[in-house]
Amino acid sequence: MASDTLPTRQRLIRTTARLLRKQGYAATGLNQVMSEADAPKGSMYFHFPGGKEELAAAALDYFNDRVMGRMADGLAKADSVEQAVTGFLDDQIAYAERTEHREGCALAAVALDAASDHPSLAGATGRSFAAWIDMFAEALEAEGRPPAEARQLASLITATLEGTIVLSKGMQSTEPVAAARDALRRLLRAPSEQAIV
Amino acid sequence: MASDTLPTRQRLIRTTARLLRKQGYAATGLNQVMSEADAPKGSMYFHFPGGKEELAAAALDYFNDRVMGRMADGLAKADSVEQAVTGFLDDQIAYAERTEHREGCALAAVALDAASDHPSLAGATGRSFAAWIDMFAEALEAEGRPPAEARQLASLITATLEGTIVLSKGMQSTEPVAAARDALRRLLRAPSEQAIV
Repeated sequence: MASDTLPTRQRLIRTTARLLRKQGYAATGLNQVMSEADAPKGSMYFHFPGGKEELAAAALDYFNDRVMGRMADGLAKADSVEQAVTGFLDDQIAYAERTEHREGCALAAVALDAASDHPSLAGATGRSFAAWIDMFAEALEAEGRPPAEARQLASLITATLEGTIVLSKGMQSTEPVAAARDALRRLLRAPSEQAIV
Repeated sequence: MASDTLPTRQRLIRTTARLLRKQGYAATGLNQVMSEADAPKGSMYFHFPGGKEELAAAALDYFNDRVMGRMADGLAKADSVEQAVTGFLDDQIAYAERTEHREGCALAAVALDAASDHPSLAGATGRSFAAWIDMFAEALEAEGRPPAEARQLASLITATLEGTIVLSKGMQSTEPVAAARDALRRLLRAPSEQAIV
């Protein structure tokens, strides 16, 4: 379905998700959302009586559903978590190059600029990242890793996926993403051992 | 020297660095900076004729000098890169708990919300992250790692330091920081091997 034939509510959510990914919460004004979503006057508060914060929380959930869906597919199709995560970082490199480092992760941007002041946004970023960690930990346990070790690796994978976006946007380069990917692969290839601590 | 006895220029820079760390570039308005820095009217454009962007670039350089100084000290004092990096992540946990997840990294926040639209900010975030990676790579080479492997590990360490800030602010919890730290320790403890790829 072409974006301009979507219902107004969906257009508002998708436009907001795109703007959050690009510039975070504070820079994303409702006028810009209304204009870029080509939304009729008044539709904003009809669909989102809670205003910008309610719209942004819905946009984060929408963004996360898409990302998690793609990651779940990747994990299901790959032979190993290592292969899937390598693929996610390769996709991130291709995406950063295609968008000239303009786009990032809506969750990371909002986590840094708004989550601590807006409980409903912290709720959205928090449940998303917790779901990522759970998904990776489950896949690592299915490969035979003990639960504590799986959870540690899953947290490092999630931190790496978000940290490499910070580095590639901050350095306007995908070189650190490729380098971090190769170090992470070494760890995911290494045989399981009882977790430290 | 107490903050209120600092010269105006320094007060503007320090206040901006603090606000960037908390909320990023877009949310940080000049009126808020002037007021929180207790800066005389007109002092802003006297010291920073380029306005908010010039001030923010100076604040990022100031922030980075402090962070790099602390990290260089930590690396010099620790017995190994593993021990130093563990200490940096422990410090991050203590800091996040002390500030109730309100503060983060000024470089990460600006990388995500403004660097791609402001070349001088991308310059500041880019040279900072490049310097972190160089510093860690040099320390890893001094431990006997081959240069390519040292660069990969240094990139993963830097991505982890930034990604764990995204997770702890986004989840309002330091649990993922501690878990990622323990996974990274396993990798840094493992014997050197020729880098993958």
